[in-house]
Amino acid sequence: MPNISERAKKMPASPVRKLVPFATQAKQKGIKVYHLNIGQPDIETPQTALDAVKNNHLKIFEYALSEGNLEYRTVLKNYYHSLGFTDLSTDNFIVTNGGSEALNFAISTLCDDGDEIIIPEPYYANYNGFAGTFNINVVAVPSSIETGFALPPMEDFEKKITEKTRAIIICNPGNPTGNLYTQEELQKLADIALKHDIVIIADEVYREYVYDGNKQVSMLEFKEASENVIIIDSESKRYSMCGARIGCMLTRSKKIRNAAILFAQARLSPVLLGQIAATAAHIDDENYIRAVREEYTKRRNLLVDLLNEIPGVVCPKPKGAFYCAVELPVDDTEKFAQWLLEKYSDNHETVMVAPMGGFYSNPELGKKQVRIAYVLKEDDLRRSVELLKDALEKYNKERE
Amino acid sequence: MPNISERAKKMPASPVRKLVPFATQAKQKGIKVYHLNIGQPDIETPQTALDAVKNNHLKIFEYALSEGNLEYRTVLKNYYHSLGFTDLSTDNFIVTNGGSEALNFAISTLCDDGDEIIIPEPYYANYNGFAGTFNINVVAVPSSIETGFALPPMEDFEKKITEKTRAIIICNPGNPTGNLYTQEELQKLADIALKHDIVIIADEVYREYVYDGNKQVSMLEFKEASENVIIIDSESKRYSMCGARIGCMLTRSKKIRNAAILFAQARLSPVLLGQIAATAAHIDDENYIRAVREEYTKRRNLLVDLLNEIPGVVCPKPKGAFYCAVELPVDDTEKFAQWLLEKYSDNHETVMVAPMGGFYSNPELGKKQVRIAYVLKEDDLRRSVELLKDALEKYNKERE
Repeated sequence: MPNISERAKKMPASPVRKLVPFATQAKQKGIKVYHLNIGQPDIETPQTALDAVKNNHLKIFEYALSEGNLEYRTVLKNYYHSLGFTDLSTDNFIVTNGGSEALNFAISTLCDDGDEIIIPEPYYANYNGFAGTFNINVVAVPSSIETGFALPPMEDFEKKITEKTRAIIICNPGNPTGNLYTQEELQKLADIALKHDIVIIADEVYREYVYDGNKQVSMLEFKEASENVIIIDSESKRYSMCGARIGCMLTRSKKIRNAAILFAQARLSPVLLGQIAATAAHIDDENYIRAVREEYTKRRNLLVDLLNEIPGVVCPKPKGAFYCAVELPVDDTEKFAQWLLEKYSDNHETVMVAPMGGFYSNPELGKKQVRIAYVLKEDDLRRSVELLKDALEKYNKERE
Repeated sequence: MPNISERAKKMPASPVRKLVPFATQAKQKGIKVYHLNIGQPDIETPQTALDAVKNNHLKIFEYALSEGNLEYRTVLKNYYHSLGFTDLSTDNFIVTNGGSEALNFAISTLCDDGDEIIIPEPYYANYNGFAGTFNINVVAVPSSIETGFALPPMEDFEKKITEKTRAIIICNPGNPTGNLYTQEELQKLADIALKHDIVIIADEVYREYVYDGNKQVSMLEFKEASENVIIIDSESKRYSMCGARIGCMLTRSKKIRNAAILFAQARLSPVLLGQIAATAAHIDDENYIRAVREEYTKRRNLLVDLLNEIPGVVCPKPKGAFYCAVELPVDDTEKFAQWLLEKYSDNHETVMVAPMGGFYSNPELGKKQVRIAYVLKEDDLRRSVELLKDALEKYNKERE
């Protein structure tokens, strides 16, 4: 039998994926599963985007430009101008098949086999997958639930920087932590990038969803670090259109852009229909974004309050995105999450959560934590937490 | 300034890309450019696919399953059953963002840094891009225009097989050659794969477009090599929907499939709307495919006959796909192709061709060749060849 690559052998299977067969079995037994485990919102895609797809007059679904069609890149440029970054032109954007491909392009542009990327942990588990694809080593800098997952001190980063370090990845607002980095924290990252000539890859796909009157600060603010910043953006979360697969990689660095475009050309074209949907979604989207932000705010408040009422549960209030990193009073959340699907139900209902081991370089650190996405409507969230509370009691009683 | 990866530095820029600015300039001067250089047909996408997109009732463009939605994989399974491969199930398919991503998954599943892939040349230039993405070495085995680019003898392959060889990539029917491998040739490849425990990656995206009553033989025919075969498929060329970005990677090998799915999970989801379009396109597609095949046959016959009438031009008759590899009586087709766009026009019209240097590991071998795609309608093809003939005379006269 032919060999499988070392690369493939080292690719992490996310702990959530391991749970999928148990969720399927539960459903086959007639049990309703509330999915708190995924970042697929139940929020509708903007009507403008749905209509643009329905009303397209194309006779041929033809290749888009490798860097994305000019019309859509113009929309992106205007959107970033509205955020205050008026120096950007359509040439600064490479349109990608989701934020995922933007991350792939960024990593392949900067890193060779065995290079290192530093990431504050817990971090979005798929970063391990993208790093594994290119055989990069992820070097984690721990942040803590006690500080609400604030950015670790710069000394912690500097201790980890080596000859092989090419970039620091941040997610702001954060998946899975819901944290929001301050102007001061980000300034320190810009400084460190310049000092060590590395790149900050800023995953800002949740930019619109920050709460309590806060405003996200983009890494684009730090113009002195223009050559050292790549922004990962996506329409998936902004417009609840994860399946359209439209994102972009954005940089002011001509050097990085001109290298990254070669990877875009190798795969020929980003999706055409997704660009049509996203182009339309950006038109007059203020009301949509405001309404969705209000909805997430309500859900977050409800969820965090209810969770913190459960004895032994610790849930810091997230400032952005739509996830909570939650500590549960159990020995091992991976086992507990499986038990929820395999053994537990109340009135033919149960709940699926994402164990956070996979969000740490050392899974032990996330052994008591789960990520809960507040992508379900309030009634469903309320019922989900009720189930979780009941399940925790029964699970711990069984183990006494 | 931060470092760019060695990987990126080695990424090939295709010679066609280098010509794009000259084409843009020509158009800005009011010159009409006939594009014989690209594989984007002017054939309409099937009405079923266009309608399915227009009539979708989705309220949320949500994530598809990483391996592709079951409905579309069922359509793929049924399509392959209709080709006679009735042992395949929906589990054998991983749906990808175009054939490009399927190639990426295949290469990353089999190869590590510095591994080797053997490809008969000339070959689809983008294989260099996919290999470059993963820092793989392409080892070419030359085929020749004199034999109509028949598969080179097996000794030539065996001489190139080393400890680092992981796969042989074939494109059948061939881009850029239009060749079609015989049952006997493919049997030899199956044998060699088994003997050396390597994989045949068969890019069969032009399967439907073979002419003169021939039938494409799939690498799936060779069941004894089931563990050693990966098929790259795509709806792009079949249904003239290159921008929908829908393809798949297909293998009977559970080992390969289970490794490849990790790369699919890392990028979360293939495009949703493309799956909707492709699912519909497969319904009752016999008339569509037959009509398109007839259209390509007419275009091919016209093009090959007209080209071979030009003194000094050699154009073997392609058996499949929609490209001709053509030898021109010039010193350097890269220079000539640029001259066509930069210096030449007749009645405000010119033609763009793809120099074939980029389709060889050693660009010198393709220095007198161009690839011409017969993706334009007959009148346009006729005019294009007229322009080419006139341009060749003038180009060579200038150089006398």
